[in-house]
Amino acid sequence: LDTRTEAEVARAVARLLPTVRVVVHESLTPDLLDVLSQVTGRPVCRTVPGEGPVVYVGPDRPRLDNQLLWLHSTNAGVDAVLRQAPWPSGTLLTRTVGRMGERMAQYVLAWLLAEAQDVPAFLEQHGDRAWRRRTTELVVGGTAVVFGAGAIGSAIARLLGACGLRTVGVASRARAIPGFDRVVTVAEVTDLLPTARWVISTLPLTPATEGFFDTERFAAMSGATFVNVGRGPTVDMAALASALADGSVGRAVLDVLPDEPPDVDAACWTLPRTVVTSHSAGVTGEEDVANDFTACWQALCTGRRPPLTVLTARGY
Amino acid sequence: LDTRTEAEVARAVARLLPTVRVVVHESLTPDLLDVLSQVTGRPVCRTVPGEGPVVYVGPDRPRLDNQLLWLHSTNAGVDAVLRQAPWPSGTLLTRTVGRMGERMAQYVLAWLLAEAQDVPAFLEQHGDRAWRRRTTELVVGGTAVVFGAGAIGSAIARLLGACGLRTVGVASRARAIPGFDRVVTVAEVTDLLPTARWVISTLPLTPATEGFFDTERFAAMSGATFVNVGRGPTVDMAALASALADGSVGRAVLDVLPDEPPDVDAACWTLPRTVVTSHSAGVTGEEDVANDFTACWQALCTGRRPPLTVLTARGY
Repeated sequence: LDTRTEAEVARAVARLLPTVRVVVHESLTPDLLDVLSQVTGRPVCRTVPGEGPVVYVGPDRPRLDNQLLWLHSTNAGVDAVLRQAPWPSGTLLTRTVGRMGERMAQYVLAWLLAEAQDVPAFLEQHGDRAWRRRTTELVVGGTAVVFGAGAIGSAIARLLGACGLRTVGVASRARAIPGFDRVVTVAEVTDLLPTARWVISTLPLTPATEGFFDTERFAAMSGATFVNVGRGPTVDMAALASALADGSVGRAVLDVLPDEPPDVDAACWTLPRTVVTSHSAGVTGEEDVANDFTACWQALCTGRRPPLTVLTARGY
Repeated sequence: LDTRTEAEVARAVARLLPTVRVVVHESLTPDLLDVLSQVTGRPVCRTVPGEGPVVYVGPDRPRLDNQLLWLHSTNAGVDAVLRQAPWPSGTLLTRTVGRMGERMAQYVLAWLLAEAQDVPAFLEQHGDRAWRRRTTELVVGGTAVVFGAGAIGSAIARLLGACGLRTVGVASRARAIPGFDRVVTVAEVTDLLPTARWVISTLPLTPATEGFFDTERFAAMSGATFVNVGRGPTVDMAALASALADGSVGRAVLDVLPDEPPDVDAACWTLPRTVVTSHSAGVTGEEDVANDFTACWQALCTGRRPPLTVLTARGY
């Protein structure tokens, strides 16, 4: 992937930093404004000035393309920001990841163990005042295939590995990535999917990943539990419904959906052996925004491309 | 603790091994009998011979004290076996632990993460077809106090430590034990209880631990979640009810109870913020029994005291 464009953009942004105004979305709190004022050494406000270059911090893309020098997204997923209109060359896009890897890792492990230890069944038994011994499943030694081997996928793999699972990452090219026992390509993973006890997706939404989990991909699984903490539209929901019906997917834990929020009569609520968790796995807080914006600002001030720069042609 | 008696007993048992009959409880399967026959090099049966020394493998104490040379318990907890009648000096008692440490560690981690990640609330929301984002809790950095620092307590600490928790073990004397960040005595732990996010008990039942978790001990906690995977009678249930009512115990996860199974109108079912899991955290399978009995047999054959020997004066 060509990263030169973003590097050049970063250098251009860095030259204009002394004169830039910092504007934040109206939803952000006064506390965050104070932090950003201290970091940038200038007043930070919620209203866009009439002219001059602007750094904007918020969840969406403001209506000021001519003045917009740099957008720092308060979210990790920037698909909506990029889809809105062609991204202007010369504008920097950075994003907030925060402790999202850690958060998502704990979310994933919690739901894996909840299934293995029969947490839902015990809760129900307790409600019924029933004393029935249950045999649970040890997760040690089971294989987890994690689609996406970036910061979030690696954090998930590290935690699952620490609990004794075998972790296989799926990335654009096979290479050693810390946290994973093995990393393979999408072409190679098909042969491994039948052995997976758990399949976890952290995929971002790009033209290449839309509808990625389709009939064929689900058919390659042999009863795995499918966990999606990436983006909803990467899953063909009709294909998932068929796979749950025929057992190639054993269970599904869906933090994200193609259409959010779903209607009360949406199909997701009646899928068998499925739970939907309202896009809560990787909530970023204002502390995450402050930390990540600060890291980007400091990188620019010292002539480096911020580590959280989005490669806009790639989409994440 | 004086372990010489058990060492002497083990040597006496070893001398009689060539002539001993191996008898198993009627509940054990033919597969297990085959394994034990191979290990011991003699036929294994379910009926007690009229005379001669006997090795008995089962969940309880058979009625043959005069002939009983060695009882291998198929359970880890031997309180019932020891309470039945005074233990005959000269009889060896060993127990099955199996993968119980690993099992209990996964049970404990599953319930900690289920709470931190709001698993019960998400399950309920899903049932109501409700899309409501929830903010969850990161367990990293929280303190878990684990009562009992033996094989099971250490396995729990290792797993919680791998997930970034700080672990404090409580043992009869303060010393370094692998898996724990720190080990303290019962006298020292009172000062630490207010800082504990999680309090986990693995205590065996002995005269010293009966009713151990009483009003005073619970009052020292500051909203911790209390998890009991040890023995039910170590908890004063009325004291726990009060502690849940006044908030010194935030939640309770009880795998064991003083009276098992509880009646349908037992108080345990109506304690607030509590779940009862039917003594399922550390189920030992026949594979565990076969492995642990074999280890004991081989230790005796090579002149060593089996590592799973119960110190009967201590009770575990």
